[in-house]
Amino acid sequence: MASIDPWLIVAVIAGLISVGVATWLYFWVDRQDPGTERAQQVADWIREGSQSYLKRLYSALTLVAVALGVIIAVVFSFDIEHMGMGTISVNPLLGIETAVAFIVGALCSALAGYMGMSVAVKANVRSATAAHQDLNTAFKVAFYAGAVMGLAMVGLAVFGMSVIFILTGDPEIVLGFSFGASALALLAKAGGGIFTKTADIAADLVGKIEIGIPEDDPRNPAVVADNVGDNVGDVAGMGADIFDSYVASTVAVMLLGYSIFAGDGALQTKYTVLPLILCTLGIAASLIGIQFVRVGKDGKPGAALNSGTVITCVIFGIFAAILVIAGNFNLGVLWATLSGLVTGVLIGFTTDYYTSTENKPVMETARVSGSGSAINIITGYSYGLVSIVPSVIGISIATLLSYYLCQAAGIDGVYGVGISAVGMLSISGMIVSADAYGPIVDNARGIAEMAGMPQDVIDTADVLDAAGNTAKAITKGFSIGAAALTVLALFAAYAEVIEARGIDLNISLRNPIVVAGVFLGAMTPPLFSALLMLSVTKNAFAMIEEIRDQFRQRPGILAGTELPDYNKCVGLAAQGALSSLVIPALLAVAFPLLVGIVLGPEALGGFLGGAIFTGVIFALLMSNAGGLWDNAKKYIETGEFGGVGSDSHKAAVVGDTVGDPFKDTAGPSLNTLITVMSLVASLFAPIIAAVHFF
Amino acid sequence: MASIDPWLIVAVIAGLISVGVATWLYFWVDRQDPGTERAQQVADWIREGSQSYLKRLYSALTLVAVALGVIIAVVFSFDIEHMGMGTISVNPLLGIETAVAFIVGALCSALAGYMGMSVAVKANVRSATAAHQDLNTAFKVAFYAGAVMGLAMVGLAVFGMSVIFILTGDPEIVLGFSFGASALALLAKAGGGIFTKTADIAADLVGKIEIGIPEDDPRNPAVVADNVGDNVGDVAGMGADIFDSYVASTVAVMLLGYSIFAGDGALQTKYTVLPLILCTLGIAASLIGIQFVRVGKDGKPGAALNSGTVITCVIFGIFAAILVIAGNFNLGVLWATLSGLVTGVLIGFTTDYYTSTENKPVMETARVSGSGSAINIITGYSYGLVSIVPSVIGISIATLLSYYLCQAAGIDGVYGVGISAVGMLSISGMIVSADAYGPIVDNARGIAEMAGMPQDVIDTADVLDAAGNTAKAITKGFSIGAAALTVLALFAAYAEVIEARGIDLNISLRNPIVVAGVFLGAMTPPLFSALLMLSVTKNAFAMIEEIRDQFRQRPGILAGTELPDYNKCVGLAAQGALSSLVIPALLAVAFPLLVGIVLGPEALGGFLGGAIFTGVIFALLMSNAGGLWDNAKKYIETGEFGGVGSDSHKAAVVGDTVGDPFKDTAGPSLNTLITVMSLVASLFAPIIAAVHFF
Repeated sequence: MASIDPWLIVAVIAGLISVGVATWLYFWVDRQDPGTERAQQVADWIREGSQSYLKRLYSALTLVAVALGVIIAVVFSFDIEHMGMGTISVNPLLGIETAVAFIVGALCSALAGYMGMSVAVKANVRSATAAHQDLNTAFKVAFYAGAVMGLAMVGLAVFGMSVIFILTGDPEIVLGFSFGASALALLAKAGGGIFTKTADIAADLVGKIEIGIPEDDPRNPAVVADNVGDNVGDVAGMGADIFDSYVASTVAVMLLGYSIFAGDGALQTKYTVLPLILCTLGIAASLIGIQFVRVGKDGKPGAALNSGTVITCVIFGIFAAILVIAGNFNLGVLWATLSGLVTGVLIGFTTDYYTSTENKPVMETARVSGSGSAINIITGYSYGLVSIVPSVIGISIATLLSYYLCQAAGIDGVYGVGISAVGMLSISGMIVSADAYGPIVDNARGIAEMAGMPQDVIDTADVLDAAGNTAKAITKGFSIGAAALTVLALFAAYAEVIEARGIDLNISLRNPIVVAGVFLGAMTPPLFSALLMLSVTKNAFAMIEEIRDQFRQRPGILAGTELPDYNKCVGLAAQGALSSLVIPALLAVAFPLLVGIVLGPEALGGFLGGAIFTGVIFALLMSNAGGLWDNAKKYIETGEFGGVGSDSHKAAVVGDTVGDPFKDTAGPSLNTLITVMSLVASLFAPIIAAVHFF
Repeated sequence: MASIDPWLIVAVIAGLISVGVATWLYFWVDRQDPGTERAQQVADWIREGSQSYLKRLYSALTLVAVALGVIIAVVFSFDIEHMGMGTISVNPLLGIETAVAFIVGALCSALAGYMGMSVAVKANVRSATAAHQDLNTAFKVAFYAGAVMGLAMVGLAVFGMSVIFILTGDPEIVLGFSFGASALALLAKAGGGIFTKTADIAADLVGKIEIGIPEDDPRNPAVVADNVGDNVGDVAGMGADIFDSYVASTVAVMLLGYSIFAGDGALQTKYTVLPLILCTLGIAASLIGIQFVRVGKDGKPGAALNSGTVITCVIFGIFAAILVIAGNFNLGVLWATLSGLVTGVLIGFTTDYYTSTENKPVMETARVSGSGSAINIITGYSYGLVSIVPSVIGISIATLLSYYLCQAAGIDGVYGVGISAVGMLSISGMIVSADAYGPIVDNARGIAEMAGMPQDVIDTADVLDAAGNTAKAITKGFSIGAAALTVLALFAAYAEVIEARGIDLNISLRNPIVVAGVFLGAMTPPLFSALLMLSVTKNAFAMIEEIRDQFRQRPGILAGTELPDYNKCVGLAAQGALSSLVIPALLAVAFPLLVGIVLGPEALGGFLGGAIFTGVIFALLMSNAGGLWDNAKKYIETGEFGGVGSDSHKAAVVGDTVGDPFKDTAGPSLNTLITVMSLVASLFAPIIAAVHFF
């Protein structure tokens, strides 16, 4: 690949444009009215808390990244291709390139997260202030701020991957970039998830239940930590999560194209670059789609977000069709792209069915709450289990369609499965924009409350907030579906890398070492979830003690004459979250390596399979059950089944609290877990192959 | 196989002896003092309720069995071996033999369950009465009654399988027997599980929480249904469950032996009959081991039960070693037997770790209950997730050990995995005896309370009851481990049956149709659990209304001057349980067939794999989390963390109620579900192969 494919130049430019638009939107949001002094003060607490957490997180991550980078540089400096042959030669260039790609990947992901969060903590107060004017303006501020994150993310990803591929021409090095992004995503997502629920649970248990003050009451020492949590968990965390799938699916298909079409140089380039082209078209479609997200004076923000998503899909579909036909690509690629795209959106909307207050699962769970919290929990959990079904069927259909339609069109079906993941994720720019809107308006509502804004402003903020929940549910379903297809593609890439080293990889379920691998892999996501949830309760206990201490020692806080020490709670949550990450992170990185080295590449194949299956199932269960409990409580709060303060409501509050770490800590981290484990396997596959070549 | 292997005669005789001893013990229990008139009356209510439920259950089952029997007779009358070749010939003998085997299997399982339950409803009151004397006698009555079930079960199983094999010489017909036993087990277990928790939850919610009367208070209209539930759920249900794994593992290995050694007639007979010989030795070991289960006057019943299990294991191990050496079997068989045996017991004891009040998980869950039920639930659920790990590692190690030790000894490793399942289950006679003891003493305690026996009798009954919980925890872990190895053996048997029809079965995770199959299989156990749990809450609601009605309309009930209508609650629970079984049963039988016929035998292989993985994981999670919550509540009731009536206790009661359908309905039914689905696949494999031969 001596000459540079012109599409790579287009990709670099598209990436830069996307980042450029994100930057422009950032300054646009910054120019909006930051509101009254009181509102600004509240917003400042949240901003400072978020930045102090990010600072700690990124310092910790820098250490991890440098350490892992050095390991990668050393390991990949050996010419492992030929280690099995008994001769060891050294190729430091490969090691350094991979390590640099790894660090750049982590940096790009961090930068996108940082931009997203910086604008979010400006947009919250500006959106609340704009809500004094009208819904439309307030919506615009929040959505454009969300788009900063969405566009920065896809732009940096495409830019980074394209540049690395232009410089090295080797997709295995782009894999390093992907691993960097994923390693950061895992820590950002899991850490943010622990942080946000530690603060949320502690604030609620002491504030709402022990003392009896409302949510978002400024007298609660944990209220700032709670709002910071929304930013670090939902904005930075979810962004990193989708960034990670987005990059991983693209790289997996680059690897597949590179090895499947190895016989023909022109075809090889064409199909290796194709996923980057699709991402580029996705950026273009998202930039157009974002223009269509508008609400009238009394319009519906939820409908506006959804129509933006649908329009982006349609435009992207048309672009993809033109590309495939005009670019003389195999037609199977188009079918695979479209099946991924349609399935992704459908899974998103199905998730909404199980968690929306307008349908049976939430209403039924709310209804039975009159018989106590145990019945609420059994019912919500059961519907959570049922909610797995449509998504799993959707993922299976997308897999089969993309595989067989490609096979029928004369192109390797495995490549098709990968392309369907890319197709699904191509519209991530738009999806993340709509998703990041959610925590911003959630925060806006909190600020309106804390800053004592008038009731009609709070009501407007409520309307904005409700729309955010739907977008959030859709993104969760979408991100799990996308992660499932991505790891299936990575799984295939892993197999290609191993077989390229001359090992015949028999990942049959009739092979006992594979069965053992699957069992070990299958138990990892539940174990990982448990570790995160136990950290949440442990850290919440520490924070509960702190809150009680503040109330005890300084009675002025409850009287409203004295400000609580918000920073102490933020610090506790940050400290707790970071130190809780060590064991889960080791599990994600070291366990697959251990299985691969001790039990061999076939067992590792089984391990990845097992982790994917239970990872997807537990992610769906926990995210959906959590969302369902949350909305069952909200449904009762609208006055149904006794309304606020009734026994039903008390029962539903318990369900909601159980659901908190389900839906915001454990569930959404599982996507990232399985992506990281798959990337570890693919990246270190040459080493595992070398160890087991004999 | 013209001449009958002498071992088969020995097996038939051993089976008869076992049933004979069970019958003798039955009459011994019957001869014990049935106690005061009041106690007898209470016991009569429970007995009548249990029998009325069993009558309904068996009537429904007769219909199902006859219908399925006719279908089997018709389908297997076609000479499906050659259907794929384009010619269809008819062989009604095969059809009738398979159908008869199926019905006999269901009958044997029903008979064992019936004997177990009949003696249990006699032993409960007799054990309570004997508790007036001393602990030792009361223990003896309960344990010998438990042994009726244990010995009847293994005796009827070995007798039935041996006779059918002697008459037909075809292990595929013995598969029909196994399917009959499993179909019955699924309905008995799931139906009993729904019944017991419907009654339990309804009785607690109205009695303990709304009205404030104690557990087992005779004024509660649901109290009899609750005690009936213990018998139909725990005695009959668990017996049917282990019966099912016991038979299925034996048949799977018979099939494997039959096909793997097809080349050599003598070896073929030897290794086809071997699992039956191991079962025979297990019966002998259990008969001896049961003699060692004794407590002194102030001895510990729990230790007596555990030592009985350990002694049985050791004796069986010695017998197996003698058999393998003297009988000139391949030494690998011995290693496989022992690895299964040791793993089974270890998994059982590990389960005990996570659910016993003496260890961290229960104590920690009890401690955090002070912060409310949500924290209790998150913590218990997380430990439930962690508890998956040791059992899954145990199953993986047993699989690998038995496979590779057999391969190294020069015998097919797949056969070894099957033998390890048989080795684990060989001591079922003893395991089930210890397990059935649990609900009997639980009932004895209830009767002592309801019949107003003196406090020291209730205290003795409490000591007996606590020992039952450990045995129950061990059996649950054991039965899940055994089911896992059994279905792995069945999985191999399925593959053998398909390949014997000339289809190359590639169940590789790199094959997308297999991946789709695994996803569909993996979602089935969660869906099945959800359906059962939703039935429990739905039926409990109906019963709650009934209880409230009785209290409202007849004030004499609460005053203690009038007896409630116990039968109405029993009838409601029975009716509800049976009608709730239709959809889950269809899911278990029809869904694998559908996958096999529509997506093909490879997808079905993946489907079974997926169902096994998540089935084992959810079974462990739900059983262990449920047991843990139960014991956390009991631990608080001993006076820790505030004791009865404290906030901690209220929170722990919620956890216990959530755990009820987890541990007694959904969790334990999953073993049976995966066994039934694997048997459906193996039994109908020839048909699926014929459909897909083209």
